[in-house]
Amino acid sequence: MDKDQARSWLATALQEARAGLREGGIPIGAALYGADGTLLGRGHNRRVQDGDPSAHAETAAFRDAGRQRSYRGTTMVTTLSPCWYCSGLVRQFGISRVVVGEAETFRGGHDWLAAHGVEVVVLDDPECAALMREFVAARPGLWNEDIGEE
Amino acid sequence: MDKDQARSWLATALQEARAGLREGGIPIGAALYGADGTLLGRGHNRRVQDGDPSAHAETAAFRDAGRQRSYRGTTMVTTLSPCWYCSGLVRQFGISRVVVGEAETFRGGHDWLAAHGVEVVVLDDPECAALMREFVAARPGLWNEDIGEE
Repeated sequence: MDKDQARSWLATALQEARAGLREGGIPIGAALYGADGTLLGRGHNRRVQDGDPSAHAETAAFRDAGRQRSYRGTTMVTTLSPCWYCSGLVRQFGISRVVVGEAETFRGGHDWLAAHGVEVVVLDDPECAALMREFVAARPGLWNEDIGEE
Repeated sequence: MDKDQARSWLATALQEARAGLREGGIPIGAALYGADGTLLGRGHNRRVQDGDPSAHAETAAFRDAGRQRSYRGTTMVTTLSPCWYCSGLVRQFGISRVVVGEAETFRGGHDWLAAHGVEVVVLDDPECAALMREFVAARPGLWNEDIGEE
């Protein structure tokens, strides 16, 4: 896909990540775009805000989009490489494309998705990386909890 | 693990699946048990009831358990072989064991989990299989929507 398009969609996910940080949460945001470029859903990690460990950014955006008959042609845009849980979501529902803000602070399942036919675009966005780097340094216990690390 | 123990835990997931069916939903239920055998969370698919496509049985049980510092030694019990989304959940959070009611009507990612060190027990439970078989025959469109099939 066009990188300018990907960057413009990433801006939505980044707004979500910053909102999560302001709320005292984990700064990861995501957005689900339709095949025609419509924004279907957006969200951010809500572990702290709702005490909900199942609300990762990608699953929050997916939930926000409501029931869909098909995910063909849709794009999941996320500020951070998707963990196995969120990678599994993408694979199961046949989401066609994943735009990853950065995969430097955490490397999830995006190579696995690419191997299973998902188009993966990694943007190496410095703001996404800085947001996570600062958060992980400040709240390592919370971050480890969110990815199931002891 | 002991099969009698697994069957007794499966009864909780089956109660959830039956509750989902009574509510007009997709009859899949799950429960998360702690390392010491305590029931941490339980739930069922809520796609229809809440219009929430992210609420699979396993993610509902995981959410119900709330924030946990570690999933070491926990067991996810589910009436049906977990899809990629739910398998990803198990792998990411280091859930140690999965008890599967049946994998005959749908085969998800439980072999992948076993290959990654998760203890997998498949019970071939006839009631779980009958529940799904009848549901899939009656509501094929709804079932396909729930697993992202077109």
